[in-house]
Amino acid sequence: MTVKQLGLEELVAACAELEVPGVGLWREPVQTYGVEAAAKLVREAGLAVTTLCRGGFLTAIDPHARGQALDDNRAAVDEAAALGTDTLVLVSGGLPEGSKDLHGARERIADALAELGPYAAERGVRLAIEPLHPMYASDRCVVSTLAQALDLAERFPAEQVGVCVDTYHIWWDDRAPAQIARAGAGGRLHAFQLADWTTPLPEGVLNGRGQIGDGAIDMRAWRGLVEDAGYAGPIEVELFNDGLWARDGREVLAETADRFVRHAG
Amino acid sequence: MTVKQLGLEELVAACAELEVPGVGLWREPVQTYGVEAAAKLVREAGLAVTTLCRGGFLTAIDPHARGQALDDNRAAVDEAAALGTDTLVLVSGGLPEGSKDLHGARERIADALAELGPYAAERGVRLAIEPLHPMYASDRCVVSTLAQALDLAERFPAEQVGVCVDTYHIWWDDRAPAQIARAGAGGRLHAFQLADWTTPLPEGVLNGRGQIGDGAIDMRAWRGLVEDAGYAGPIEVELFNDGLWARDGREVLAETADRFVRHAG
Repeated sequence: MTVKQLGLEELVAACAELEVPGVGLWREPVQTYGVEAAAKLVREAGLAVTTLCRGGFLTAIDPHARGQALDDNRAAVDEAAALGTDTLVLVSGGLPEGSKDLHGARERIADALAELGPYAAERGVRLAIEPLHPMYASDRCVVSTLAQALDLAERFPAEQVGVCVDTYHIWWDDRAPAQIARAGAGGRLHAFQLADWTTPLPEGVLNGRGQIGDGAIDMRAWRGLVEDAGYAGPIEVELFNDGLWARDGREVLAETADRFVRHAG
Repeated sequence: MTVKQLGLEELVAACAELEVPGVGLWREPVQTYGVEAAAKLVREAGLAVTTLCRGGFLTAIDPHARGQALDDNRAAVDEAAALGTDTLVLVSGGLPEGSKDLHGARERIADALAELGPYAAERGVRLAIEPLHPMYASDRCVVSTLAQALDLAERFPAEQVGVCVDTYHIWWDDRAPAQIARAGAGGRLHAFQLADWTTPLPEGVLNGRGQIGDGAIDMRAWRGLVEDAGYAGPIEVELFNDGLWARDGREVLAETADRFVRHAG
């Protein structure tokens, strides 16, 4: 997503050239290219698919919408398995139209995980609940902290449900270091993503994630916390940024790799 | 601030007409009008000044900037006392330019409170730390949760330092109900403010606070929690909203009073 201006073939070639060993993929470009064809493309390039983004949106009350969401998440699990990644990242979903009940929405996510967790584990895929910054609580993700994500995940076996830690969403939270340790101790640190916090935020607050090193987040400190908790998996850089998307994708990828080494390496 | 388009005399007249018994004032219009004149105006109208907003911005590292901030906060305490309110709301301040150290910034707030708390108490004024939504953590307020605010406040006597609970900033936080109880038990619930959460957020995320009833927050539930914790003080409605500011101020005040009764009464 950091360089969504690149097509899948361009992306794979650019990663190979920069010796980036793995890539997190999003479902839409993979579906457009064809899941099997995408799997073959990355496999033959020797590139690991670190995670698939994203499942989730599991807060609907309406039974029909709820059934559709579960079907869509099973499809996402199948796609993850086909791509050879063991991790599907979940963005939980916001409040249904007109609802003010955060607690109820969080409980519906748990109900959905009870169905999806075993389905995923049978296919070698772990679900990773990603807490999103509290500014998304109403319209995107009612799971706002790592503690909440773990409260949900721990109702299920760790090989079914864990968490995705993204610095952009948790950097402000003084409880997050202890929650990272909790996640690591439980074998639930399933993914780790970097993005920096820059202001002013753009309208809609979706596409203002900062390039690594441009903002307020101490990347090396968070990497240290995650690794101290036992995480040895890939580290993804996931930037939603209109400015970066407007530039040449290969140049942005090279810049990102350089920033990673300088600020998080 | 909800109707900042009204001058102080218009505001006082409109409150009297609507039988609004109290008003939270901001420093700038009070200073422009003259502190003593403003105090006389509200006193003679029989209107209570519920809080003065705001002191704070206590995170500077530079000794000169730090001394200026302390001076300015002492002046704010003096103004609160002159206006006859017992509560000065504090917005703590963000990260200094180039800093990534949230913990250090929070400790500098504690250092400042050690100086300001006794000064305020001697003048009959309580300081109320207002946790601001985590989306303001870098540039406005490094105190992002009620738990953090109480961790700071509890280092000092309750008659010196407490907290200000604003629904807009804490509504997403599943720990907030327990923290409201903690604040109440310690006698530290010094102010209670309402604003609703609406999306999409505007650029800069400052002036998009929703009119009561327009958004995702269950106002009556939060009022219940605060009152269950022993709060019997005034309830303020504090909306920063470009749309409301563009309308006739008396009409907005009447609408706000109506919304308060319908959604929080």
